[in-house]
Amino acid sequence: MTTRAPATSAPATRAPATSAADLVHQRVVGHSLDAPFYVSEEFLALDIAAVFARSWIFVAAEAELPEPGDYVTVTIGPYSVILVRDDEEDVRAFHNVCRHRGARLLHEPHGSVGNIVCGYHHWTYGVDGTLLHAESQSPDFDPTCFGLRTVHVRTLAGLVFVSLAARPPADFDEVADRVEPYLAPHNLRRAKVARQIDLVEEANWKLTMENNRECYHCAGHPELQRCYFPLYNFTADEVPPALRATYERFLAADADARATYESLGLPYETIEELDTRPTGFRVQREPLDLAGESFTTDGRVAVRRLLADFPTARLGHLGLHTQPNAWFHLASDHAVTFAVLPLAPDRTLVRTTWLVHADAVEGVDYDPDTLTRVWNTTNEQDAVLVARAQRGISSPAYLPGPYSPTESQVEDFVNWYITRLKEHLEG
Amino acid sequence: MTTRAPATSAPATRAPATSAADLVHQRVVGHSLDAPFYVSEEFLALDIAAVFARSWIFVAAEAELPEPGDYVTVTIGPYSVILVRDDEEDVRAFHNVCRHRGARLLHEPHGSVGNIVCGYHHWTYGVDGTLLHAESQSPDFDPTCFGLRTVHVRTLAGLVFVSLAARPPADFDEVADRVEPYLAPHNLRRAKVARQIDLVEEANWKLTMENNRECYHCAGHPELQRCYFPLYNFTADEVPPALRATYERFLAADADARATYESLGLPYETIEELDTRPTGFRVQREPLDLAGESFTTDGRVAVRRLLADFPTARLGHLGLHTQPNAWFHLASDHAVTFAVLPLAPDRTLVRTTWLVHADAVEGVDYDPDTLTRVWNTTNEQDAVLVARAQRGISSPAYLPGPYSPTESQVEDFVNWYITRLKEHLEG
Amino acid sequence: MTTRAPATSAPATRAPATSAADLVHQRVVGHSLDAPFYVSEEFLALDIAAVFARSWIFVAAEAELPEPGDYVTVTIGPYSVILVRDDEEDVRAFHNVCRHRGARLLHEPHGSVGNIVCGYHHWTYGVDGTLLHAESQSPDFDPTCFGLRTVHVRTLAGLVFVSLAARPPADFDEVADRVEPYLAPHNLRRAKVARQIDLVEEANWKLTMENNRECYHCAGHPELQRCYFPLYNFTADEVPPALRATYERFLAADADARATYESLGLPYETIEELDTRPTGFRVQREPLDLAGESFTTDGRVAVRRLLADFPTARLGHLGLHTQPNAWFHLASDHAVTFAVLPLAPDRTLVRTTWLVHADAVEGVDYDPDTLTRVWNTTNEQDAVLVARAQRGISSPAYLPGPYSPTESQVEDFVNWYITRLKEHLEG
Repeated sequence: MTTRAPATSAPATRAPATSAADLVHQRVVGHSLDAPFYVSEEFLALDIAAVFARSWIFVAAEAELPEPGDYVTVTIGPYSVILVRDDEEDVRAFHNVCRHRGARLLHEPHGSVGNIVCGYHHWTYGVDGTLLHAESQSPDFDPTCFGLRTVHVRTLAGLVFVSLAARPPADFDEVADRVEPYLAPHNLRRAKVARQIDLVEEANWKLTMENNRECYHCAGHPELQRCYFPLYNFTADEVPPALRATYERFLAADADARATYESLGLPYETIEELDTRPTGFRVQREPLDLAGESFTTDGRVAVRRLLADFPTARLGHLGLHTQPNAWFHLASDHAVTFAVLPLAPDRTLVRTTWLVHADAVEGVDYDPDTLTRVWNTTNEQDAVLVARAQRGISSPAYLPGPYSPTESQVEDFVNWYITRLKEHLEG
Repeated sequence: MTTRAPATSAPATRAPATSAADLVHQRVVGHSLDAPFYVSEEFLALDIAAVFARSWIFVAAEAELPEPGDYVTVTIGPYSVILVRDDEEDVRAFHNVCRHRGARLLHEPHGSVGNIVCGYHHWTYGVDGTLLHAESQSPDFDPTCFGLRTVHVRTLAGLVFVSLAARPPADFDEVADRVEPYLAPHNLRRAKVARQIDLVEEANWKLTMENNRECYHCAGHPELQRCYFPLYNFTADEVPPALRATYERFLAADADARATYESLGLPYETIEELDTRPTGFRVQREPLDLAGESFTTDGRVAVRRLLADFPTARLGHLGLHTQPNAWFHLASDHAVTFAVLPLAPDRTLVRTTWLVHADAVEGVDYDPDTLTRVWNTTNEQDAVLVARAQRGISSPAYLPGPYSPTESQVEDFVNWYITRLKEHLEG
Repeated sequence: MTTRAPATSAPATRAPATSAADLVHQRVVGHSLDAPFYVSEEFLALDIAAVFARSWIFVAAEAELPEPGDYVTVTIGPYSVILVRDDEEDVRAFHNVCRHRGARLLHEPHGSVGNIVCGYHHWTYGVDGTLLHAESQSPDFDPTCFGLRTVHVRTLAGLVFVSLAARPPADFDEVADRVEPYLAPHNLRRAKVARQIDLVEEANWKLTMENNRECYHCAGHPELQRCYFPLYNFTADEVPPALRATYERFLAADADARATYESLGLPYETIEELDTRPTGFRVQREPLDLAGESFTTDGRVAVRRLLADFPTARLGHLGLHTQPNAWFHLASDHAVTFAVLPLAPDRTLVRTTWLVHADAVEGVDYDPDTLTRVWNTTNEQDAVLVARAQRGISSPAYLPGPYSPTESQVEDFVNWYITRLKEHLEG
């Protein structure tokens, strides 16, 4: 018989259940969150209420609904939202619920309508949400009381954000004013959707977001690392000998890129306000490695027709992060948007959309496989990693561990998130 | 950047959770129910306790167990019930649970047995529920204490109802006395099962029932509408010009039918006591359109051998509704029974059974596809509609909406239901 | 209309919810447990906390990880545990959770490693659990604080038990001292795994265990009954005429077996301490029927190379039961281990492992189908039986029923279990 005394022993069981509010207030700065944040139904409901039903949520590119009558339906937790372009070509948003007996109105992820007609009893709404017709009503029925319930919506340089809140965060317009000059030159309002891929990750949505906010794990992304300069985990002083040549290449590319940005009037200074406001964001323009043009395996453009009349394709990339659920990469030839939407405590939708110039022709100007390869491969690699994190955290033996200095944006995300929960619990 | 202010804003989150009892008492007459009634596990449990374990529930036709020893097993929420025909040819009902260590006794939906033998330790019960044998017991074991637990059962003109209650609603016999004269001429006790189809609808059982109780949505049933006169949504004054010819045809058919009913001594006056008693019901005899004989695409009989020795096949149909979970259509040549049984908050079984004369021969007297086409198609159309209702109501943006005057029987169903919940919560 | 008054009526609904603690204390000795013990999520959590995270749990045979670096991962409720053989050839156990951000470390059921490297950010641990490397840390990061969390582990004659408790039951070593002389002659430390079969039973883990602890149901196991003498349900006085010849054969085989055990110095007296200590157990050596050598359809050995240098293959079998989750059968030629692990209130893993001498050659010394036939067939038969028990108990009409005298070890198991729950609830 062999005996082995344990050095560190796990508790037999979890401590007496701590309330969600206590867990929020006990959170240890600099460490990953306690397990219930990632695994419990209670926290999913809290995240919907405190974050997804209050903040500005990125849900689509305007390019997904180019013409009047075009619509997209989006699921945000238990909500279904219709985005529809109205006759004035503005994007409107409505709850996808009939005002009669509550039937869902539109069933497809996207399509085109004249009016919005409920398939159950044929109540008929205009694309502005007004109830136009409801058969067999008594004379005192007032249709003006039964228009579709609206959802707040903003578009920012071709990106559509909604807020399910009665009073959405007031700082969106200010953020938009600061970010739009970075994005506008890429002309996303005139873009078209080349591909959209939905990936369901078997992890809590916060693990998906935390994973996006660091490159400490990027050794797991060989394709992506060829495009980027893999220097994320080091200050200038710390660059190891093996990366010294890469660092020199970066310095040259960076100087070159800055000169290009200056000559073209492209704003490029990093703004980072990730955890200091309700509409937290970070925007940055920086060079790419290899040919320096795009997210491809050789760094060259994936689309011959550029997004705008840039005099050079070698613009590196513009990166935008928005809290709580999105990130964006814009190159000279295409842009990629990423929307993260919770499905269950341990299931999350990552919707990735590749945008190209409206006149770019598939098979002529671009090959979709080349266009999507780097980020689609990266997403699939990340899906494996975050699923492993979810599984490990589900053990009662999990203890929150320390973030390394290179994971500072993870900490920013968690700070932002905890602030939202505190506001909600106190409000 | 486009800005759009919402006219009607949805609350960010649900109000602080309201208790089930409060929701029952706050219910607004004339409107659909609040979302938790349709989506929560709590209300499913309440519905089982207050409705399915207390009321008289239609579960089968006697024709499903014609001979002594024939049995049917029926699932009512968490309960499994055995219906078995005993040696006196009466239908008995027992809980499908061994009195030893609780094993389920019978596993098939139907079959035939001599005794009921538990497959685990071979405890053996008679079809009257008495424990006949249990091996390896101590001398003080008293088998008379371990008979099968019985379930109340009634048969009404060939239809089998059970009640899981200790004291079932006392008004069943009175209702049966009034309804039996309508049903008896169709001779269902001598019928056989031609087809039985189980359909699982992705909706709460109450949405399935509400859907059945109105024809406001019947434009979605073109096959059924050819059989019926599609005048449901109109009083005589309101019939629109497009339906004027149909209305005239109805008036002629109705006069004709009444003369036939009178000459044959078939009761036909509508009785409607849907929300005024525990065993709520509605019975009605009325003509059908086209050939006026049956629920087929041309209105002619689907079965050459009629259910009884009627001098004419042109009897229209006898419709019976029983609260909480059934409806029935009887024509001269066949009858259709519909039993609704909850499986989950958002899943419901609809069991449809087509009955024909015991001596009718498949392939000679009837073609099963012709027999089942209209109602099976209608069921499948309804499954799509109620699933859309379930999905819409699951959004926190759903608000109960107003019933139109043509949905009065929906209101009756909801009234009946709310009364049962109040009785249960107060009892 | 037929009326039938029930003799015994089921309550309309369950009584007002009783607390788990009340159900534990109200348990009626000699009867099966109340339904919530078998069906509720609450009791599954309680069983994990009070039983599976406190007791000594059988999880593997040492033969599953023969060499240094070999590992097995085991799931115990929400826990994942790594068993790994270290460089000193001892078996160690760790929680399968990275100390950084909680990712699961090892994903396969078994394999071999040099170090344990997290696939997320490459934190690297030795097989002794120490953190060897974590990149990009600040200077004050102390790796000695972030070793893997250990799990208590014991090996007993080649069988591996773990305890997730901070202070595991202290009586394991005493039990091991008493049991090891029975097991040691079978040489399991030098065995190898011939087959391992995982079976998921659709029943609560306690129904799986209760089923194992009685042979009242063994008429359902014709293959197994040929190996055993089917006399379980009778005292010597009670043996029925039909089994009289079997009983005489048993008496002769028993006398013969005792003489063999004595001559070989094999301990054989039954020790039964199933419900009187935390590490409850029962050990017994007894003859088998037919050729008396092994669990095969003719009773002859399934493996030509015996587990040890026994002078005869005709040793009957050594049976060991350990509470809460295991049983074992050792014959001269092979051993079979059974580990029961809960997956959900109504889903349980039964992992069966067949062990043979390390030098036995598949296809030469043994045929795997012959080796596994009897117990694999028996397991599959049991899976059907316990699933029926689970289904029946899920009905609100289920009432706990009386154990027969032949089910005394079921009662012992339940006594042991209730004692553990009381200790936990009081502790």
